[in-house]
Amino acid sequence: MSEWFETADGILAKVWGTLGRGVADAKHPARRPTFATISPDGWPEARTVVLRTADREAGVVTVHTDLYSDKIKSLHATPRAALHIWDAKQDLQIRLQAEVSINSGAKTRALWDKIPDHAQQSYGVTPPPGTPIETGLDYVKDPDPATFAVLDCTLITIDAVHLGADHRRVSFSRARHWQGQWLSP
Amino acid sequence: MSEWFETADGILAKVWGTLGRGVADAKHPARRPTFATISPDGWPEARTVVLRTADREAGVVTVHTDLYSDKIKSLHATPRAALHIWDAKQDLQIRLQAEVSINSGAKTRALWDKIPDHAQQSYGVTPPPGTPIETGLDYVKDPDPATFAVLDCTLITIDAVHLGADHRRVSFSRARHWQGQWLSP
Repeated sequence: MSEWFETADGILAKVWGTLGRGVADAKHPARRPTFATISPDGWPEARTVVLRTADREAGVVTVHTDLYSDKIKSLHATPRAALHIWDAKQDLQIRLQAEVSINSGAKTRALWDKIPDHAQQSYGVTPPPGTPIETGLDYVKDPDPATFAVLDCTLITIDAVHLGADHRRVSFSRARHWQGQWLSP
Repeated sequence: MSEWFETADGILAKVWGTLGRGVADAKHPARRPTFATISPDGWPEARTVVLRTADREAGVVTVHTDLYSDKIKSLHATPRAALHIWDAKQDLQIRLQAEVSINSGAKTRALWDKIPDHAQQSYGVTPPPGTPIETGLDYVKDPDPATFAVLDCTLITIDAVHLGADHRRVSFSRARHWQGQWLSP
C-alpha cells in the first residue's frame, strides 16, 4: 500500500479532496486560497479569496467577488489567475493556473438569492472598493446583486509539491488530460 | 486608548511587527508569504517562500531562492513581486508590492557560509527545479553556493486590511513616505 504522495494519481486525488474540504469547511486552509492576477499596469497582485466550488470533472473552481473590485479590472486586462494553497498539516502546496471568466447580472441572480443576508454584505460598498476615504469607516455596506460576480476559473495546470521527508513535485495539465508529470522540486 | 487597527500608524506598526514575527518565528503565518510574479509568457504565478529579513527603516524584505527556479526566470522578465500574508489570528491581510533585485555569487557568499548544512539543502538540485523527471525521486540534492540567490524586495506599496467586526483598509506607499491612505474595503 503506497502513501498518497508516492503516486501522481494519489497526489491528484489529494489535491481535489483538499479543494473539496476547502469548499465545505470554513476552517480549512484550502477555504482561503491566495488569488494572484496581473494589474492593468503590469504588477503582480495577490489577495485572499474564498473558495466556493471545486468541480474535478469539469476542472473548474469558483470564487465570488465584488464587480467593482480591483481584481475585476485586472481580469478584464488579463483573464488569468493563479490560485495558491499551502496546507501545512499535509505538507502540501497546491498551485493552480486558470483562465477566468466573469459572470454577473442575470447570470448570477439565482445564486445571489440563495446567499444568506450576512454574506450578501460582502458585495456592494459605497464608495466602490479601493476608493480613497477620509477615515477608516467612511463607507457604507450596501448589498446589491448588481455588484455580485462569480469568477469561473477553468484550470489549465495544477502543480502540487509534497514537502515531506522527501520532496515530490508533480504537474498536471488540461492539455495532457490531467496525466501527471513529475518535476524536479 | 485606541486599538491598533483604528489608526493608520497603528496598522503600519502592526504590519512591520507581524513581518518581524515571521522572520523570527518559524511557526508564524508571516513566515511563509505567498510570492506572486508574472511568468515570461504572461501568467500570474504564486508560490510559498520563507521570509528571511524585514527592515522597516529601508522598507525592504528578503527571501532566498534557487537561482535556477522558475521565479528567477519570471523576475528577469518582470522584476516585480507581490507578497501576501493572511494572519487569521489578527484578522489581518498584508499585501506588499515590491521591486525585486536578484543577488547571487560573490555578493551572497558570506551569507551562504552562515546557513546551516540542512538549510543549504534547499539550494541546488540536479536536474534544475522544474525539469521533467521519470519518477518523483529522480533528483539529487546538491547544495551549491552558485545556485543560492537572495531576493531583495524593495517595497513600493503596503496594503493592509483588518477584517474585524468592522473592515478597515489602508494603503501606504514609498512615494508618499509611508503615510497612510484609508481606502473603501
